[in-house]
Amino acid sequence: MSDTDNANPLDRRKFLKAAGLAGAGVAAGALPAHAAEPEKVIVEKQEWNQALGAGVQNAPYGKPSPFEKHVVRRDVEWLTASRESSVNFTPLHELDGIITPNGLCFERHHGGAPVIDPAKHRLMIHGLVDKPLVFTMNDLKRFPGRINRAYFLECAANSGMEWRGAQLNGCQYTHGMVHNVWYTGIPLKALLEQAGVKTNGKWLLAEGADASGMTRSIPIEKVLDDCMIAWGMNGEALRTEQGYPLRLVVPGWEGNMWVKWLRRLEIGDQAWEQREETSKYTDLLANGKARRYTWVMDAKSIVTNPSPQAPLKQKGPNVLTGMAWTGRGSIKRVDVTIDGGKNWHAARIDGPVMPLSLVRFYVDIDWNGEEMLIQSRAMDSTGYVQPTKDELRKIRGVNSIYHNNGIQTWLVKKNGVTENVEIS
Amino acid sequence: MSDTDNANPLDRRKFLKAAGLAGAGVAAGALPAHAAEPEKVIVEKQEWNQALGAGVQNAPYGKPSPFEKHVVRRDVEWLTASRESSVNFTPLHELDGIITPNGLCFERHHGGAPVIDPAKHRLMIHGLVDKPLVFTMNDLKRFPGRINRAYFLECAANSGMEWRGAQLNGCQYTHGMVHNVWYTGIPLKALLEQAGVKTNGKWLLAEGADASGMTRSIPIEKVLDDCMIAWGMNGEALRTEQGYPLRLVVPGWEGNMWVKWLRRLEIGDQAWEQREETSKYTDLLANGKARRYTWVMDAKSIVTNPSPQAPLKQKGPNVLTGMAWTGRGSIKRVDVTIDGGKNWHAARIDGPVMPLSLVRFYVDIDWNGEEMLIQSRAMDSTGYVQPTKDELRKIRGVNSIYHNNGIQTWLVKKNGVTENVEIS
Repeated sequence: MSDTDNANPLDRRKFLKAAGLAGAGVAAGALPAHAAEPEKVIVEKQEWNQALGAGVQNAPYGKPSPFEKHVVRRDVEWLTASRESSVNFTPLHELDGIITPNGLCFERHHGGAPVIDPAKHRLMIHGLVDKPLVFTMNDLKRFPGRINRAYFLECAANSGMEWRGAQLNGCQYTHGMVHNVWYTGIPLKALLEQAGVKTNGKWLLAEGADASGMTRSIPIEKVLDDCMIAWGMNGEALRTEQGYPLRLVVPGWEGNMWVKWLRRLEIGDQAWEQREETSKYTDLLANGKARRYTWVMDAKSIVTNPSPQAPLKQKGPNVLTGMAWTGRGSIKRVDVTIDGGKNWHAARIDGPVMPLSLVRFYVDIDWNGEEMLIQSRAMDSTGYVQPTKDELRKIRGVNSIYHNNGIQTWLVKKNGVTENVEIS
Repeated sequence: MSDTDNANPLDRRKFLKAAGLAGAGVAAGALPAHAAEPEKVIVEKQEWNQALGAGVQNAPYGKPSPFEKHVVRRDVEWLTASRESSVNFTPLHELDGIITPNGLCFERHHGGAPVIDPAKHRLMIHGLVDKPLVFTMNDLKRFPGRINRAYFLECAANSGMEWRGAQLNGCQYTHGMVHNVWYTGIPLKALLEQAGVKTNGKWLLAEGADASGMTRSIPIEKVLDDCMIAWGMNGEALRTEQGYPLRLVVPGWEGNMWVKWLRRLEIGDQAWEQREETSKYTDLLANGKARRYTWVMDAKSIVTNPSPQAPLKQKGPNVLTGMAWTGRGSIKRVDVTIDGGKNWHAARIDGPVMPLSLVRFYVDIDWNGEEMLIQSRAMDSTGYVQPTKDELRKIRGVNSIYHNNGIQTWLVKKNGVTENVEIS
């Protein structure tokens, strides 16, 4: 590790040797419980059972316990010129299972989140179609063929600051631009069939009703395959910051294409090459050229606990957990190492494995209090294996912001404090 | 229908003859869209894209759009002596998919919802065990074998007022004491294995830390089969009103057994026969005897749209939707009628069908503006078919409050207004 050369941010990264670590086993040791005398605890008075609690009229729309007030999206004030064109991050280290609660889904806006009256909102379909159409929200909710699907959404820039080794101190910041939600809506294919796409209609332009007028081009094959228009998330209406009243769902593809506050769909014969798909959301390579059309989010995983915001508190049994996702098929396997890659262990994947949806994994560990270097590595149904950051940098250089799916390393120190490091 | 005999509430029910209805088809007709000219709409100024929206620091924990403020749990002030021992109801008619958002999960308390400091909370296991144990929340979160499971929870009294034909005007009130949530926790079996259940340990008593000290007895076979202790719901911590920081999960069984604010588990050799499993949560039959041990929630379904709170707004295509669940196995089929039972149509079940978890169903209808009598009927993997209310009354009389899984009927009138009725 060097702090001497500030000109090259790569040199500021904390590098660690993986050799010589033997910090823990993945089999459980003594179980975590206290052989105290329950009878003594049973008769203890508790402040919360000495008086009536809150009645049912208290919270028509419920909120988290006051003891969970630290579980929030967090933004970074210095990151962007304005907070209307910025991002906040999902607290992954505080979550579990596969569903991201609506109140904690990260936000990324280009002109802030507009409050739209659904009664006035319209969705237009025009361009290379037989019959241009305008839909009210009520029209869409009456449309036959409604479906619900769980999909991950990852911002292309998730982990972007790690390209050059920013080593942000927590998975909320390094990986918190991903969420996993059940969407309610209809296949976009059904709407386009009503409009009638002309034979030369090869691309779709989606436009948002926000101040930025976000526009993205999507090839018609993807649109007809599995794109949805959605008005619901996790059972209820979309949240304002997720596109209320209507958003485009582009399963497995970068989040910027999932146009929020969706108002217009135009069919054309070529890509529009808008600002947000040329000067932005492309990867500048070392030779000065940019990669074109990098829509799919490749397989990725992250250990969320332990992590810098969720250090280990004691030796012995501890639950290591994390999440994995892929924009191609489904997650087949997640391997975890706690000794910097010397030994890899197949993690236990819990719950349903659905295509293009996040999976949860666990490894029960028995920590002896020595240092650990923790990594996870996802493999998907195409056989693709999540690469290291250095493997990505060899091919794409260090100019990139987007599409960093490299393996993340956490160092757990002897006192349980956990840091973002890289292994040389 | 008779309004003359107020002594017998059954006579106040609105009865309808099912004959002669031919209100709609279940095939889609003209699709709901407007062949307006999109180009005129496209250039319209919209108030919400003329200025920046909210920035990302606006809501660390997000809330629904202000246009959704009507989507709330609702309680009924006159229902119980106090609102600390009362209930509020999930707005089923506003929800979709299979997940109930945490802020909208119905509440039922017996001494109000206490705010508990998780650092001070303890779970005790004692009684007929080899080694009594006390767990902190931290101990539980370190325990090996963490899982996530989606389960419905239905209050035994859900639809209870319909036994005598209260005909409450909306599925939120008739069926809103059910929700479906992903729970994070550990199998209770794993904790009991650590404590060591003695061979004469046949029952478990679960006690809550609230002011009511809720206690229920559960046979050990069920406990060891699939009961969980859970600290998470839908990805985040339990909500206060759902038992924060810890609740018992008793899949498929009546909600009252899912003890909230769980503090004590005692193993015994017989049932405790506590107040809430004898004088309450039992069904009084016509002969004055009460049914014993009616824990399992039988197969049930409800059409949530259309319904009294969600009337039809226009003829033509409309989406009929609802939900079904069973405490035995999984839902195999849901049939829907729109003509009071003359014709039944297999509904389309959307999304994953998981055991002891809610399923979502749809029927796309084409409404001609005539009256409809809508019902749904669930069948589960045991072959059990949801009964009519009258079939239940023939066996159990009209004294019951609990375990009403009878078929619900909605009358859609010519103006789209929808009412709670019964078919004679």
